[in-house]
Amino acid sequence: MISKRVVVALGGNALQDPDRPPTSEEQLAAAKNTAVSIVALIKAGYDVIIAHGNGPQVGRIVLASEYAAEVTPTIPFPECAAMSQGYIGYHLQQAIQEELRKEGIEKPVASLITQVVVDKDDPAFNNPTKPIGAFYTEEEARKIEKEKGYHMMEDAGRGWRRVVASPQPIDVVESQAIKTLVDGGVLTITVGGGGIPVIKNPDGSLEGIPAVIDKDFAAEKLAELLDAETIVILTGVEQVAINFNKPNQKFLDKINLEQAQQYIEEGHFAPGSMLPKVEAAMAFAKSEPGRKAIITLLDKAVEALEGKTGTIIFDE
Amino acid sequence: MISKRVVVALGGNALQDPDRPPTSEEQLAAAKNTAVSIVALIKAGYDVIIAHGNGPQVGRIVLASEYAAEVTPTIPFPECAAMSQGYIGYHLQQAIQEELRKEGIEKPVASLITQVVVDKDDPAFNNPTKPIGAFYTEEEARKIEKEKGYHMMEDAGRGWRRVVASPQPIDVVESQAIKTLVDGGVLTITVGGGGIPVIKNPDGSLEGIPAVIDKDFAAEKLAELLDAETIVILTGVEQVAINFNKPNQKFLDKINLEQAQQYIEEGHFAPGSMLPKVEAAMAFAKSEPGRKAIITLLDKAVEALEGKTGTIIFDE
Repeated sequence: MISKRVVVALGGNALQDPDRPPTSEEQLAAAKNTAVSIVALIKAGYDVIIAHGNGPQVGRIVLASEYAAEVTPTIPFPECAAMSQGYIGYHLQQAIQEELRKEGIEKPVASLITQVVVDKDDPAFNNPTKPIGAFYTEEEARKIEKEKGYHMMEDAGRGWRRVVASPQPIDVVESQAIKTLVDGGVLTITVGGGGIPVIKNPDGSLEGIPAVIDKDFAAEKLAELLDAETIVILTGVEQVAINFNKPNQKFLDKINLEQAQQYIEEGHFAPGSMLPKVEAAMAFAKSEPGRKAIITLLDKAVEALEGKTGTIIFDE
Repeated sequence: MISKRVVVALGGNALQDPDRPPTSEEQLAAAKNTAVSIVALIKAGYDVIIAHGNGPQVGRIVLASEYAAEVTPTIPFPECAAMSQGYIGYHLQQAIQEELRKEGIEKPVASLITQVVVDKDDPAFNNPTKPIGAFYTEEEARKIEKEKGYHMMEDAGRGWRRVVASPQPIDVVESQAIKTLVDGGVLTITVGGGGIPVIKNPDGSLEGIPAVIDKDFAAEKLAELLDAETIVILTGVEQVAINFNKPNQKFLDKINLEQAQQYIEEGHFAPGSMLPKVEAAMAFAKSEPGRKAIITLLDKAVEALEGKTGTIIFDE
């Protein structure tokens, strides 16, 4: 059982068709599509744990909350992240429950509200880069900066936005509860959006902070804590490539840590896109002998786990 | 262990001091107070499962979403309920984790996104009464009624609001996952706000609907499914009274189902206030021999479970 334990990190497309409006109805439809691929993994005998992103969703929740500030108090960022876990978890669990039911598979499904600890001294806090919420004029942005102490940055010519840091996950607060569910045969959805970011205060208490944890790194940390054999990092391509979109583009079947590091140094993987995925994959492969990571498309996950496609990152 | 299993249904005051502004910061402060009483139950040896309301919170989430309609798509009611579970669950679990840590008790805590099934033919759907979200003028209300098919009602002279039904809970979709957590020693927070309301379609699939499930009835259903011995329904008074606020007011220590029914018929309990609490308590006491319900204040819960205060409703 343990040997087939797989953490699957769902990306944005698994929750929202980029060509459709960002409504709840469309999110549920996307979740239903995603559920088909998840249940295919269950049918193939894998013990699946699901991690997922929340970028667009938490952005819209923050936006609505800021926009409605004159009628109801604005909700802080960590709480908005918690809300996005409820919103997305509900859709994923309902969609997967339904797909399991159609396939005649009896397996409980549950989403857990999950906090992920980051280091308050993480260097990322010196250089916040993740834009969230509404767009403002420069004048408004300067005012917000003064009033609330937010970091504000100009975002690609579209206006000024609040930016938060993207620190590394160091622990999953609810890992024991997640283990209890997974060991009990429950298909568990967790670390949504990379988790609700919390820091540990000197007295040991936890405190939510505004930050965006990369979901692939959070999934990697989770996979370590659950002693999973494999992490599947889903993306928009079937395999990772070097010389991407160039005449000499080459897809990668299987690379070891040394090769992956070399490709990173040669600049093959785009920062903020394929690079963090390869880095999360490497972190898992490195964490313990025998662990491997696969980067592929959601609907190729079963084939990739069988070694037929995808890019496998392993330690030798 | 099973014999000391207790479902605690937290009311509004456990999550929000009515004399303070309805901010996240105040909600977290209220949750920290609540955590002290919850951990007192753990220390007294009870195996606690927490249910909670979400009325004010989901109201504000709906309000912000409706208010921000011009900048981001409005989120439907069941999804707002899911968001409120994330929002409140996060605060409760963090506050309880901290209180356990302070007391040196090692016990995992987790909040589960929870769907609760209602009957689509529940007579409550013919008479929606629960106001949610923003206030409108009559003209706006009539327009919304036509455009969206919502039920709109005048709310106590303050304006027109959407109203939804309050059907009875018939099942907790995630009960198996909840059992797994509770059996595994995890302090579990669930059926938040009475649960995300879903109906079962003729094909067996679940579908979210706009409705508000009474949290005490949802907690009662949960307590049955978990085979709890006791349900503690928390309220703003230490004991239930007959002739409430009258010169001949009398507090009740212990009443059986027959007495409770008689007091209901005599009109002692206010509809929408003490009446549904007494009814939920009766439903649990009636569900199986030996089960009992207690209605009391949160900080009297330990004493009440020891039989020293509160109102016990039992079957004989």
